Amino acid sequence: MKLRHTLCFLGTLVLLLSCSQSGIIRTQVPSRPAGQQDMIQFAAEPIPDVGIGVVGLGMRGGDAVERLSFVPGCHVAAVCDVESDRAQASIKYLEGKGLKANAYSGEELSYRALCEDPSVDLVYICTDWMHHVPVALYAMEHGKHVAIEVPSAETLQACWDLVDTSERTRRHCMILENCCYDFFELTALAMAQAGAFGEIIHAEGAYLHNLDPYWKRYWNNWRLEFNKQHRGDLYPTHGFGPVCQALNIHRGDRLLTLVAMDTDPFNGPKHESARTGEPCKDFAGGDVTTTMIRTAKGKTILLEHDVMTPRPYSRMYQLVGTDGYAGKYPMQQICLREEGAESVDYQNLGREKIYTGDALKELMARYPNPVLTPELEATAKEVGGHGGMDFIMDYRLIYCLNKGLPLDMDVYDLAEWCCVTELSRISLEHGCAPVEVPDFTRGAWNRVNGFSYAF
Amino acid sequence: MKLRHTLCFLGTLVLLLSCSQSGIIRTQVPSRPAGQQDMIQFAAEPIPDVGIGVVGLGMRGGDAVERLSFVPGCHVAAVCDVESDRAQASIKYLEGKGLKANAYSGEELSYRALCEDPSVDLVYICTDWMHHVPVALYAMEHGKHVAIEVPSAETLQACWDLVDTSERTRRHCMILENCCYDFFELTALAMAQAGAFGEIIHAEGAYLHNLDPYWKRYWNNWRLEFNKQHRGDLYPTHGFGPVCQALNIHRGDRLLTLVAMDTDPFNGPKHESARTGEPCKDFAGGDVTTTMIRTAKGKTILLEHDVMTPRPYSRMYQLVGTDGYAGKYPMQQICLREEGAESVDYQNLGREKIYTGDALKELMARYPNPVLTPELEATAKEVGGHGGMDFIMDYRLIYCLNKGLPLDMDVYDLAEWCCVTELSRISLEHGCAPVEVPDFTRGAWNRVNGFSYAF
Repeated sequence: MKLRHTLCFLGTLVLLLSCSQSGIIRTQVPSRPAGQQDMIQFAAEPIPDVGIGVVGLGMRGGDAVERLSFVPGCHVAAVCDVESDRAQASIKYLEGKGLKANAYSGEELSYRALCEDPSVDLVYICTDWMHHVPVALYAMEHGKHVAIEVPSAETLQACWDLVDTSERTRRHCMILENCCYDFFELTALAMAQAGAFGEIIHAEGAYLHNLDPYWKRYWNNWRLEFNKQHRGDLYPTHGFGPVCQALNIHRGDRLLTLVAMDTDPFNGPKHESARTGEPCKDFAGGDVTTTMIRTAKGKTILLEHDVMTPRPYSRMYQLVGTDGYAGKYPMQQICLREEGAESVDYQNLGREKIYTGDALKELMARYPNPVLTPELEATAKEVGGHGGMDFIMDYRLIYCLNKGLPLDMDVYDLAEWCCVTELSRISLEHGCAPVEVPDFTRGAWNRVNGFSYAF
Repeated sequence: MKLRHTLCFLGTLVLLLSCSQSGIIRTQVPSRPAGQQDMIQFAAEPIPDVGIGVVGLGMRGGDAVERLSFVPGCHVAAVCDVESDRAQASIKYLEGKGLKANAYSGEELSYRALCEDPSVDLVYICTDWMHHVPVALYAMEHGKHVAIEVPSAETLQACWDLVDTSERTRRHCMILENCCYDFFELTALAMAQAGAFGEIIHAEGAYLHNLDPYWKRYWNNWRLEFNKQHRGDLYPTHGFGPVCQALNIHRGDRLLTLVAMDTDPFNGPKHESARTGEPCKDFAGGDVTTTMIRTAKGKTILLEHDVMTPRPYSRMYQLVGTDGYAGKYPMQQICLREEGAESVDYQNLGREKIYTGDALKELMARYPNPVLTPELEATAKEVGGHGGMDFIMDYRLIYCLNKGLPLDMDVYDLAEWCCVTELSRISLEHGCAPVEVPDFTRGAWNRVNGFSYAF
């Protein structure tokens, strides 16, 4: 109950909005406290064997415990869930592999003891959305690095709190965006970085996933309830993260302007009514939400969110470049200008070739992502987790902590990818007005030239 | 040269903009002159054998002459082109079939004689974009019905001129939007109208077509020049028309709010430089333009325009309904909730099935569009024209004129689909601000309940 009060209090710290002459809405950017440094390319001391505390052992967290037990250079040191059964199930799983871990459970604030546990170096947060930020802040304040499931933060205030706390405590705060590690996205990114598509000028991403069969799996109906209470793109990062990496966001470019539009809620209230047996009023979230974002370098990103209608699953991953194109849904295809010396003749600018099937496989094999060694790919597919991408994500996180390297995704990625939720709501509530995306790096977005992995 | 002066003069009649308290930009809606009636469900006297005058015999017009010679209930009575060779080629084609027609050519204003020719009932306009409206206005003023290639009008002023002239002269003014007659779109519309997708709440359409190989085919470089001079979605109707029909626009719902965002021009200036050998400054059109539109009933439409980057051709046709989904690119698929009595159990809301390949064919065969009889489909595929859809469009136009029926597309469809060009420019030039879509019916958008074909 104390936590709920804390959340209510945070909710009252509404960020002030201002509207400039050009009509763009600006949210408040808190100034960086004197002496506090940014986290660009931040690297911590190497941790040879990372002790991990997993908080939240429901759908995602229980899987994480199992997966992490296969990752070299780390061990699960502690587990935590408000429900003791879940904590015991994870402990039992680990014992079956001859591993031991501390268990914390039984209360909403049990995670505090885990965050204070000296055997824990990294707090790996898989709770419901509302507990992501309180756990992360408490963990960083107690000297732990944190990795947070998606969406890591739902409000601008939460984004700024994570940024400021990470900067002040000098602790990593990573978003667990597994879709950055899916095979097609990893290879398309490698192709983009090799210049195969020319300059990437437009990209698309989405979360189009009918959640009808899943609503009832969420503890206390929290996920449908969240859609009922909130308008906006509530789940942007699966689509957004991978394309931000391809566009080098805060590594030479930055997000500047966001505009959103949504449908009325059509199916949302029906799901709620089916659950309660009562008519549903005041359902806030529209069924389909579309968001456009423009960058400082004049590129655009399109995002879509729809968890309410029956349609084929899609993350709509697309990269549109001056010399080529990659698209993943509903089928993978890559389009390139035809190669060869004669293609420099401007009369032949238009010659292009579409790669699908075996030709696509052959083409993509020529652009291996440095992260994805054949050995890692084989292990990832064996261990599983959304086809292997979860394992690759975990592997990279631990690899970088082991070696004392910058992580693939920093706290600014987290803030940029997650801020879409509240910024889209602001745009929607102002009749689809343009909203400025805050610069969470506070001036450092142009210091690094291009996204890269550390080794 | 006189025409150019006229166009310059029209260009100075800039519609006044106003910005309301909510930040939405409103363009001026001219009031309907006293005594003038709207054209909703307008039907003219039957014309048993329609005499057609085709103006503009370049890429599209020459094909139209040939195609129309196969359509029952009409004959090509006259042809016109500024270049006499083209007019003679069409005459020769007709003579080869034992047909005669008057030819008008040699001057930019040669079309006037065609519009005054008493053997012409319908002026079919296939000129470059800049001549669409002057020819159409002159034709209606001389008592002819008109059909105009896409995009029929590039400015709001032109849209209003066509609406007012059509209303005052009581002449049809149809947009030749052939994509409304493509096989997948026709069937998906029939399914939508049968309720197979529940209520359509979101739709998408696009023109994604790399024009690199085509730029040089346009007389006097007019098409690339148009992109150089204009910012906005310059070619919206192929994607927009079919989804507006599925959403019953001005037949129970109306377009309300539009917001656009574009990339900088990256490839556009390169094409212009390659042509001229000089560096290109001041290229106005962004490579990729994205537009979102919201309707009075809380539905949304997404449009994209990109003729500059190498990518697979796509019109991105998608219908998102409360109970189903249809998508055409890059592969055709339909998704429906699973059928059967047990699906009314709310626990099973999420059961859905994706139809592709033969299963899709079988499903679609159960929803024939009334327009598409087996005989017409066979003839259309034989005559051709973008796979047959051009022929079906022509067939419907002549069928309705023969019988004195309302046309499938009226002057308000034309204005609604074409106004995206200037409205998107206004939004872009105001930092992606929301712009109100004018009600071209001036109050009559809710009189007809649902889109239908007349027979």
